[in-house]
Parts: sequence; C-alpha cells; structure tokens
Amino acid sequence: MTSPSPLALPFPELPPVAGAEVRTARAGYRDWARDDLLLVTLAEGTTAAGVLTRNACPSPEVDWCRAALPGGRARALVVNAGNSNAFTGARGRAAVEAIVARVSAALGCGPDEVFVSSTGVIGVPLPIDKAKAGLAAALAAAPAGWEAAARAIGTTDTFPKGAVARAVVDGRTVTLVGVVKGSGMIAPDMATMLGFIFTDAAVAPGFLQECLRRANARSFSCITVDGDTSTSDTVLAFASGAAGNAPMRAADSPGADAFVAALADVCLRLAQAVVRDGEGASKFIRVDVAGAASDASARRVALAIANSPLVKTAVAGEDANWGRVVMAVGKAGEPADRDRLSIRFGTTVVARDGEIVAGYDEAPVAEHLRGREVEIGVDLGLGDGRATVWTCDLTHGYISINADYRS
Amino acid sequence: MTSPSPLALPFPELPPVAGAEVRTARAGYRDWARDDLLLVTLAEGTTAAGVLTRNACPSPEVDWCRAALPGGRARALVVNAGNSNAFTGARGRAAVEAIVARVSAALGCGPDEVFVSSTGVIGVPLPIDKAKAGLAAALAAAPAGWEAAARAIGTTDTFPKGAVARAVVDGRTVTLVGVVKGSGMIAPDMATMLGFIFTDAAVAPGFLQECLRRANARSFSCITVDGDTSTSDTVLAFASGAAGNAPMRAADSPGADAFVAALADVCLRLAQAVVRDGEGASKFIRVDVAGAASDASARRVALAIANSPLVKTAVAGEDANWGRVVMAVGKAGEPADRDRLSIRFGTTVVARDGEIVAGYDEAPVAEHLRGREVEIGVDLGLGDGRATVWTCDLTHGYISINADYRS
Repeated sequence: MTSPSPLALPFPELPPVAGAEVRTARAGYRDWARDDLLLVTLAEGTTAAGVLTRNACPSPEVDWCRAALPGGRARALVVNAGNSNAFTGARGRAAVEAIVARVSAALGCGPDEVFVSSTGVIGVPLPIDKAKAGLAAALAAAPAGWEAAARAIGTTDTFPKGAVARAVVDGRTVTLVGVVKGSGMIAPDMATMLGFIFTDAAVAPGFLQECLRRANARSFSCITVDGDTSTSDTVLAFASGAAGNAPMRAADSPGADAFVAALADVCLRLAQAVVRDGEGASKFIRVDVAGAASDASARRVALAIANSPLVKTAVAGEDANWGRVVMAVGKAGEPADRDRLSIRFGTTVVARDGEIVAGYDEAPVAEHLRGREVEIGVDLGLGDGRATVWTCDLTHGYISINADYRS
Repeated sequence: MTSPSPLALPFPELPPVAGAEVRTARAGYRDWARDDLLLVTLAEGTTAAGVLTRNACPSPEVDWCRAALPGGRARALVVNAGNSNAFTGARGRAAVEAIVARVSAALGCGPDEVFVSSTGVIGVPLPIDKAKAGLAAALAAAPAGWEAAARAIGTTDTFPKGAVARAVVDGRTVTLVGVVKGSGMIAPDMATMLGFIFTDAAVAPGFLQECLRRANARSFSCITVDGDTSTSDTVLAFASGAAGNAPMRAADSPGADAFVAALADVCLRLAQAVVRDGEGASKFIRVDVAGAASDASARRVALAIANSPLVKTAVAGEDANWGRVVMAVGKAGEPADRDRLSIRFGTTVVARDGEIVAGYDEAPVAEHLRGREVEIGVDLGLGDGRATVWTCDLTHGYISINADYRS
C-alpha cells in the first residue's frame, strides 16, 4: 500500500468471531511483496447472504456467488487481490471452479458453500496455478487476525479498513466484524466494492439477506467515488451461530432490532471508510438533500451532486462555488424549483429561495471548506424526501492514480 | 484566453452573412482586457429557432429565450460573457429585461425579437449598469467579423470556434456561419453550451426549428466533456432571408435537403470544436457503439463510456485499459451481453465474444493511443442500434482549471 489517504482512520481493534477463521497467503497475482489471497473458513451451519453488482458485465466470481446464495449456507470465503478475473470468458469461469473444487474437497463441503471474490485488473484470466498454490499455502498457514485479512484483499487501497459492532440477542452478546476494500470504480447501485461481514450470531439465511439488503441501501449504495460501477462489487455476510442464541428468523425475533442496528452500523462505517480511501481523496464530503419529492428522488439529487466533477473539483480547491451545486441539482432530472432551492455549506446557508442570501459572508464557508470534512446541504423545498450520500473530492491524485494504474 | 488547447484548430475563414451585423464591446463583466459583450443585429424578417438546456435550474436568459422562441422572429442577439446570471432571482430577471428594453428601443422592434444569452459564474446578478454601458458601446461600434464574435463570447475557452457551410437553395447559394463557446460543464441532453448559427437563407420558423432540433440531436447532444449540464446552455439559429430564395417551409421545399445537410455539418463541426477545447483535454475521443438494441440504447452506452472518469483517465495515460470500457458498458443500464461484446481501439480489435482476442498484440493499440485522436469502438452484438459520441480525456489540466476557476 502506498502512503495512506489523509482521510485514513486507524484500524480498529477487531475481536475474533467464533466460527470464522482467517488465513492469508501470497499467491503472487501481482509482483508485490504482500499476501494477496484471503481464506476464511466458517463453522458448519454458517448462514450466508449477499448483495452483488448490477453491472451487466459481471465477473465469473459474481456469477458464482449469485448462483450459490440461494442455498444460504457457507463454509468458506476466498478472496483474490490484484486480478478481478472479469471479462475472461471460459478460462475465468474455470479458475473459479478450480478454486471452489479445491476448497470444497479440503473442507468436505458442497461447492455452493464456497464463496469467491476477486478484485484487480479486468480481462486477464486468474492464473489457476497461482490460485492453487496460494490456496495450499493458506490452508497450511496459521490463523491470522482481521487486519491481515483487510490488508490481503486491498489493491489501490491505501489503508486497511474494518469495523466492529456488538448487539445483545436472546441474552447473549453477539459480535459483528467487517472488512472492506475499495477506493476506485466506486458507485452505488449495489454493493460497490468487496465487503465481508462475519458474525457469531445465529441468523436464518432469509432474514440475514433481508437485513443485509436494508443495511446496504443506506450504506454501500449511498457512496460514490467516481460514479463507475465495478464488474466485481460484492458484499457478503456470514453468520456462524457460535454465539448460541436462538436463531433470528424475522424482524420480530428477540434481539433482531439490536442485530439490525449493529449490522447497519458496521456497513455504514465500512462504506464511509471506502470513501475515505477514495482515489486521490483529500476531503470527505457528506451531501444531505431534504425537501425532495421522495426519498428516492432525494438520493438521485444527492448522487448528482456527489458525482459532479465540477462540484468535486470545487471542494478540492476549497472554493465555495455553490453555483455548481445548483447546476448539479438541476441536471439530476428530478423535480426541483429553482426559486425554492436553498443551499448550505456546513451550517452556513449560502442561498435561499433561488438566490444568494442577503449580506452573504463567505468567511465561515471558506473556513468550513479548509477542513477535512465538508458538508453540503440542499433543501429543495418541495416535499419530505431526504437522503444522505458520501463522497470525496476530485484531485490531481485521482488523475495520477488512474492514468497510470495498469501500466 | 490562456494558451490554446493542443487539440485547437485554426479559426476558419468565415464570410459575412447578409442580414446579420456583428458588433462587440467591453462591458467589463470580469476584470479582463477583452470584449465580453456581443451584439448581432438582424435584418427585418429574420426567423429564429433554438434548443435550450434541460437543466431544471435554468438562467433567466434561458427562460427569456424559451418564452420568445414561439414568436419565431429575431432582430438582435446579445451575449454576455463572464457572468451567467443564473440563480440570481428577481435581480437576474430584471437585468435581462433591461437589456431587452434597451435593444428593442434602439432597433424599434418587439421585445420578443431580442434574444439574450449569458455565460460565466453562477449566482452573481448581471450588473445592469455594466450591461447598459456595454450595449451603448456596442451600438456605437463599427461592425466586426465572426472571429471577434467568437472571442467575445468565450470564458474558459482557449481558442475561438467557428464553422461555415454553404448550400444551393432555389438556385441561390446560401451561407451558414456558426460560432460557439464552451469547454466545461458540457454534457448532452440539449444544447450544451452557447452556439449561434446565422444564415442568409430564407427559412420559415417552424421548419428552422425542426432542422435545428434534428441537427442538435446528432451534434451538440452527442458531446460530453464532464457530464455536467449547464444552467445556461443555448443554441440559436437565425435566418435573415437576404439570399432571396423562396422560403423553405418543409423538408420537401426546393433545396431543403442541401440546407439540412449544411446545418448538420456546421453543428457537428461546432460541437466537435467544443470537445477540442474541453477543459484540460489532450486527446479527442470518438466513441462508436454498434450492435445495440436501439439507437437510443447505443447512445446511452456511448455516453456511459465517454463520461467514465476511469476510461477518460486511461486515455489520458495512453493506457489500453479496455477492461474499463467493459465496466462502462456494463454500468450503462442498457441491454448488454458480456459474452457477445467486442471492443476495438482504432482499427485493432482487442476483445471479442467476451474475452481478449487470441494472440492480442498491444503494440498497434499503444501506437494509436499515443496520437491526438483516439477511437473506441464497441459492438454489443445484439441488434442494429448505433451511435457516435465525442469526448476528451480527463487530465490534470481539468483539475487545475476547475479547482481554481472562480477564486
């Protein structure tokens, strides 16, 4: 990993999760001196849920996970970093099948209990020999901690990202741990990078899926770095049941509220960590839209602002160019009335009812923009719809990273 | 204007257009040593047509033109550069009305025969005193040429942009001249900058509008620099009738075919000139999509490619990263089948049927990418839909310009 993002947070203390064992190995998918294969083995009875990219050209790993998820059971997760294996035709599919065959043979489980994700360059088939050697090394390795897992799955990431939450369910404290990777090709509409959440809670697969879908809608689906939706985006959740609670089957199960809140919390912190590692990011931007015709409309307006190169470069330049926010609101294709619109930066209202506020003083706005965390608020003045999305600024760093990533 | 884009073309020889007289003046909307007000006076009987931004927060100038266009007649065009007057409430509307009142009084015409456009920073009311003084100076100035007009309307433009075409209509040679400004906040879905076309042909307003709508759909609506749709985008066409041809009223009027082709030609060259002046552009990119479910679907896929920051930075870095093209196709939300997709750079097919071609040789692709003009071709293998759009790469120059434009 290169020097950490200025927005990086320290890796949190993540406890072990009973029923999930982490191992990493160096498959050598790229020419780098680090582990790039993650194997998490899961206790018998572990349930699984997932949300996958909506990109119409998904990787064979995404196809595999989509086919395996209805089974709702998992014994292992394998993640390869440095090669996404996307757009590799029959050879790519063969590589996934070879990984699954190895792991299911080693663990004595069904193939549909093995989940695989890969991330990195598109179009180069994942080398089966490196994958097999890496798997053999991982299976023989000593168990490792979550930080090693977070580091093993990174590509252009500049810092390892993880989160933890706890909930009391059925009289027992359950733990949820998540790790995530991602810093470019990040846009909402499904899981928008690779994220993996592990819990020792007992959760029926259908309910776990419902909880993950809801948490995703307000976390990973509300972040954007560059509006580009990856061909490999995947978020998977695994519940080992080792905590021994009575399995949660629905929203009215004992403790389900606490579990749902804890899962939402982990997902939101992981999603925000991805934005903090946005390629070239120097500012963490929160966009709040209120007064929209509906929540969905508010989200689309917020994303139009968060994806606007002109808004993102203005924030990078610490320029209170609120006119670009007006432009982005107007281009979103959603109901908006220029003459009811108000805009704030931080807590300072800049424009109200379609024009700049009387006696506007740019000083507090400029002060706000000099910070690392910038908040843009828009009130459309039309209805009750609201949404919050998170993004980062667009800097020279993004250009440097992406004009020179593969070569 | 700063140093010209590396993609700049020389300003063409543009002949006078009978019935249209150009004057420029220095209103001083910004602190710069150049004319920034354009006044074009038009002969009695001139017809008018226009396409205007779809941005939901348009400037009062756009509102004014939208209200005036149904009249179909024009005697003057006023363009202010350096201040878009957008999002300025009642004061902005008053500035437009003051300009119109001055010009209609001077020319003895109706207010709805005066068209006004402004471009520049959003949110600062256009200073009425500067506009009035500028207009007085323009009305007293000697007539100027089209290059002066093109220079007067520019803002972040790095070179003046114009085009000419001729057509034989009803036995007479008619002339079409256009000037355009724009280099950032450029995206399709309507006229996407300020463009003005003048002809001495006689054309009924309804047919002129139809011709402009069609020409716009394949020119200004097929370019993008940054995906940001301006609040001021406007393309207007004026036909003085001084050539003396029998007025064209419909597609089957004598010479209408030739006129339509000439107008399409002028619009396309003006649109491409805007891309060539895209902020920070170092490469001119043509994106061809074929084999789509429909032409509209092809255009949306082409725009997803042309607006992808990852594709644009890859071209800037001369990196044949066709995987990013796959990603952009997949994220477009249009019908696509990964395993039928083929991609080329220039004339070299890189991927076919969902994977890299056997024995792929990157050398000719790398050679193509080193040039100033880059062509990306995608065949979706599904149907007969096709579209072409034009864009530029995304470079450090874009960041520098936009992180520092207003301040």
